[in-house]
Amino acid sequence: MKKAFVRRPSAEPASPAERIVTTATRLFESQGYAATGINQIIAESKTAKASFYDHYPSKELLGKEYLARYGANHLALIRTLMDRSGSPAEFIHSWVRILKRQLKLRKFYGCPMSNLRAQTADSSPLLKAAVKDLADSTIELIASYIRTANPGGLFAAQKTATLAARRIFSAYEGAIHIWQLTGDEAALDDIGFMAEQVLKSRD
Amino acid sequence: MKKAFVRRPSAEPASPAERIVTTATRLFESQGYAATGINQIIAESKTAKASFYDHYPSKELLGKEYLARYGANHLALIRTLMDRSGSPAEFIHSWVRILKRQLKLRKFYGCPMSNLRAQTADSSPLLKAAVKDLADSTIELIASYIRTANPGGLFAAQKTATLAARRIFSAYEGAIHIWQLTGDEAALDDIGFMAEQVLKSRD
Repeated sequence: MKKAFVRRPSAEPASPAERIVTTATRLFESQGYAATGINQIIAESKTAKASFYDHYPSKELLGKEYLARYGANHLALIRTLMDRSGSPAEFIHSWVRILKRQLKLRKFYGCPMSNLRAQTADSSPLLKAAVKDLADSTIELIASYIRTANPGGLFAAQKTATLAARRIFSAYEGAIHIWQLTGDEAALDDIGFMAEQVLKSRD
Repeated sequence: MKKAFVRRPSAEPASPAERIVTTATRLFESQGYAATGINQIIAESKTAKASFYDHYPSKELLGKEYLARYGANHLALIRTLMDRSGSPAEFIHSWVRILKRQLKLRKFYGCPMSNLRAQTADSSPLLKAAVKDLADSTIELIASYIRTANPGGLFAAQKTATLAARRIFSAYEGAIHIWQLTGDEAALDDIGFMAEQVLKSRD
């Protein structure tokens, strides 16, 4: 299960900075950002305290790096799925399939943007802004895709495409939270249903 | 802004247990459950430490009480709105109006079920189960309403009504999270749109 370690050739040991981020990611995901203290990250990443603070002067900056890495993967995944899909409906279908696979492999802890936002409340303007940037980028990416996937169609106007993209992202967040609240995996299927309604609407 | 104190007649001072819950609620909402320590609750509720532990032997039990009180209000509000509404669409409309009013009054911190779930990750089976109970009750309440609001109609079957209710609750959770992530209040309007699609669907 320790994929990050398996992947790395043993001849090239992880740098302290890498070990810190890998450990922090595992702990932020499994026990939450708020519940994870710097001392635990230092201990479990086997880093010297001074070295830790050299790389990350605060937990907040480590949280920002964690979110940035997640965000890069998240947007890259969405772009790859879009490139491979023939239509927005097909893209949504693939996206849901990936979520379900992560769930099955127990590698899914919900939406990191949303978890981080809930765990920092209004106490971190830095993380709040980073979360907003990533959420806005997600909506823009989906909007630009559904606008170009159907030129001259229902979503030709920027405003209409952005509204539809927000609703699709909302269906994604909603379904993930219903799954987190109830434990009902079938909730993820609602993403496909909801997105289909959004994509055929003239509203 | 300290409404709980304003409301209470000065002749009848709050009991320690009440002061603890009121203070905990304010802190859990404004700074988050995970970020709130017992010592802060003790200090700000002006309770003796021994008295605090008499009432709440652990933060988890206080979290459970906080969720139970929120849950009772949440379900009562939904029931009241249903009683006053002529149709499921009207009920959703009133529900969204209440959310927007709370937002305007800066008394809205998102969904307490979902915030608590994100902030305890898998570390508290007690709170996880309490959150699941409340989420399931919310879905059941909505399902029973849309089934009886339209007897013999699209949602006459228990299974269909429960599916529609889950999707409506998903639209509610999704919209609240999009608002939390992006700061865009218009996201709350998506609840009405999504619920409308769900309520007219034959899926």
